[in-house]
Amino acid sequence: MALSGIRVVDLTRILAGPFCTMLLADMGADVIKIESPGGGDPVRNQGAMKHGVSWYFAQFNRNKRSLTLDLRSAEGKAVLADLIRGADVLVENYRPGVLDEMGFDQARRDALNPNLVTTSVNGFGSTGPYAQRPAFDFIAQAMSGFMAVNGREGEPPMRAAPPLSDLVAGLYAAFGTVCALMARGRLADGAAGQRVEASLNNGLVSLMAYLSAECLAGGTDPKRTGNDHPIMSPYGLYRAADGEIAVAASHDGIVERFLGAIDLLELLERPEYATNADRFENRAGIDAEIEARIGLDTVEAWIERLNGAGVPCGRVQPLTEVFEDPQIQAQEMVLEIDHPGRGPVKVTGFPVKLDGTPCQVRLPAPELGGHTGEVLGELGYDAPRIDALRARGVV
Amino acid sequence: MALSGIRVVDLTRILAGPFCTMLLADMGADVIKIESPGGGDPVRNQGAMKHGVSWYFAQFNRNKRSLTLDLRSAEGKAVLADLIRGADVLVENYRPGVLDEMGFDQARRDALNPNLVTTSVNGFGSTGPYAQRPAFDFIAQAMSGFMAVNGREGEPPMRAAPPLSDLVAGLYAAFGTVCALMARGRLADGAAGQRVEASLNNGLVSLMAYLSAECLAGGTDPKRTGNDHPIMSPYGLYRAADGEIAVAASHDGIVERFLGAIDLLELLERPEYATNADRFENRAGIDAEIEARIGLDTVEAWIERLNGAGVPCGRVQPLTEVFEDPQIQAQEMVLEIDHPGRGPVKVTGFPVKLDGTPCQVRLPAPELGGHTGEVLGELGYDAPRIDALRARGVV
Repeated sequence: MALSGIRVVDLTRILAGPFCTMLLADMGADVIKIESPGGGDPVRNQGAMKHGVSWYFAQFNRNKRSLTLDLRSAEGKAVLADLIRGADVLVENYRPGVLDEMGFDQARRDALNPNLVTTSVNGFGSTGPYAQRPAFDFIAQAMSGFMAVNGREGEPPMRAAPPLSDLVAGLYAAFGTVCALMARGRLADGAAGQRVEASLNNGLVSLMAYLSAECLAGGTDPKRTGNDHPIMSPYGLYRAADGEIAVAASHDGIVERFLGAIDLLELLERPEYATNADRFENRAGIDAEIEARIGLDTVEAWIERLNGAGVPCGRVQPLTEVFEDPQIQAQEMVLEIDHPGRGPVKVTGFPVKLDGTPCQVRLPAPELGGHTGEVLGELGYDAPRIDALRARGVV
Repeated sequence: MALSGIRVVDLTRILAGPFCTMLLADMGADVIKIESPGGGDPVRNQGAMKHGVSWYFAQFNRNKRSLTLDLRSAEGKAVLADLIRGADVLVENYRPGVLDEMGFDQARRDALNPNLVTTSVNGFGSTGPYAQRPAFDFIAQAMSGFMAVNGREGEPPMRAAPPLSDLVAGLYAAFGTVCALMARGRLADGAAGQRVEASLNNGLVSLMAYLSAECLAGGTDPKRTGNDHPIMSPYGLYRAADGEIAVAASHDGIVERFLGAIDLLELLERPEYATNADRFENRAGIDAEIEARIGLDTVEAWIERLNGAGVPCGRVQPLTEVFEDPQIQAQEMVLEIDHPGRGPVKVTGFPVKLDGTPCQVRLPAPELGGHTGEVLGELGYDAPRIDALRARGVV
């Protein structure tokens, strides 16, 4: 696999950090998830549960091994030091400064392992006036400008339903981690390790695309336009006889194909719909004409006809339909993983495909501390030592 | 830099592909953007323009070099073959099969360069029944299930305002590309090259987080909940005297800190607000109590007080405020790049920070074909040969 042989010590919990390490684990890295004895990652008890397994936890922690470790104890910290000595990557999502306070500042990490890549995922970045603020997806959606552009004009700002800033930060962190691994040996001081950082807020700011360009160039705020495109028409959701379809006529050629396919090409001869600027100005009018026509047939029939004509279009699918969609199944975007003793768990599949070293499910999400003995054994700890650590509640 | 010495031949246009290659270029890769003579990437003429520069194009094409090339001509294809011989990565966002039809199928690419990583960004993946459908961000948002969970209950499904599926696909493609570079030499057949693929639709499906877990476990569709958290209260936007603030009280400890900070701790003594389940059921009531109190002071005052109490909260910032935000400035999330002869252009900054091999702006977004002579010279073409290609309109 692409990252076989890369060992990751994972101090993260909840979502952003675990998503980062899941992406690395899916590519073959050996991710050792450190959890507090007794409780572990709170997500183990969140979301939909079946047979004692959180399907949310299962999705984001597949392919990892779990080691319980009391990081408040000196003995626990000594175990972490041993893990760091043999690792390529340490991933953490504490508030900035906490890792240092725990006794693992840069100097200590360098002393333990100069080749270590330390990846931090946090709310706002580790420098600047908000570095110490508590972070949460909803807050980053508000502060990054995402909510302000999202939603309909005349209505309040709207968040994205999924915890987007967590996921985007995790994805950037995984990308940065692999770049840092590529950089080994290229650093000016000859060392191989370095710090990588991604944050919820910065990640979303980087995804504003033309909305940020418009604001930076013009100094004004983009309007909220709901499902309407800010400059193109026709574009949006149209109601068919049995549901809604999304149509994106992204340039004049596609507008012609679209109106041709629904037998409304004559609309383009009317002066009020002749150019994109005209159509955009008279959007309500052309949308009503289109919807009257689309309403005459079914979603299925239109999707087939429009795709045949090369018009980007699609059904607005609820998740239950998404997971039954033949394309999603062909792309193996739902995986069934056996959790021994707890039955099969379905999780979403691999979003990036490599044909030579494909992502694989090697392990289900781990039981809490399920690999404690195994991992400590690999560090050279013998059975009596492991038993003693267990007896004292360190692992 | 992390990817110094990595050469990327970039056949992409618009957004998803160029975002992938921008991420690689920001990390130090030498990205050669191939554009058609005369026109080039359509984004050059889209979005906010100043002094002939699209600020949208500038944001997504910094750090790249531009080579014009007519890929319909045999001579143009020969130049592309020469570029591929010396490249580490080829990135393309054609519809599946088009690269093959152009004469660059897997066998040809292997013959030219067995170490080549070929990265494809497309709508639905290159296999399956929808592989040939035209794709567009809005369509992927509809088909992936994203729109169905986004928005308010009782209102239509809602897209995210930014072109999220393009950006997420580009980010996954960049991550997969670097993983494939890490994999060199690990492939079973001893070759170093392989194919990497990310798609608009699969990328968004992978970001549904607990919403997908809930659906896969229970077989039912999550409701649209607007800005309300699906299971927690209090949580949401509250109107202060001069604007709105976002508050996320993500567990009981934070609920106490929040209600304590706004002097409403006594609410927890009422039976209807005692537990999260009670508060969630009587959400309108507790939200009204909170809003009456929050309305008595300004956004600024509450933000300071709530952050002091450790409550995740933030101002709902429009983009103009985001780009003036002291945190965003401390994080250098707005960069000013000089475009010689066209003045300074502001773009968003680097979302992932590496302290040893930091991302840098080495080049502004290129003029169309601005590096044609330079790149061809590096391939060993002499001046008369380059002039001849120019004269025939090949470059």
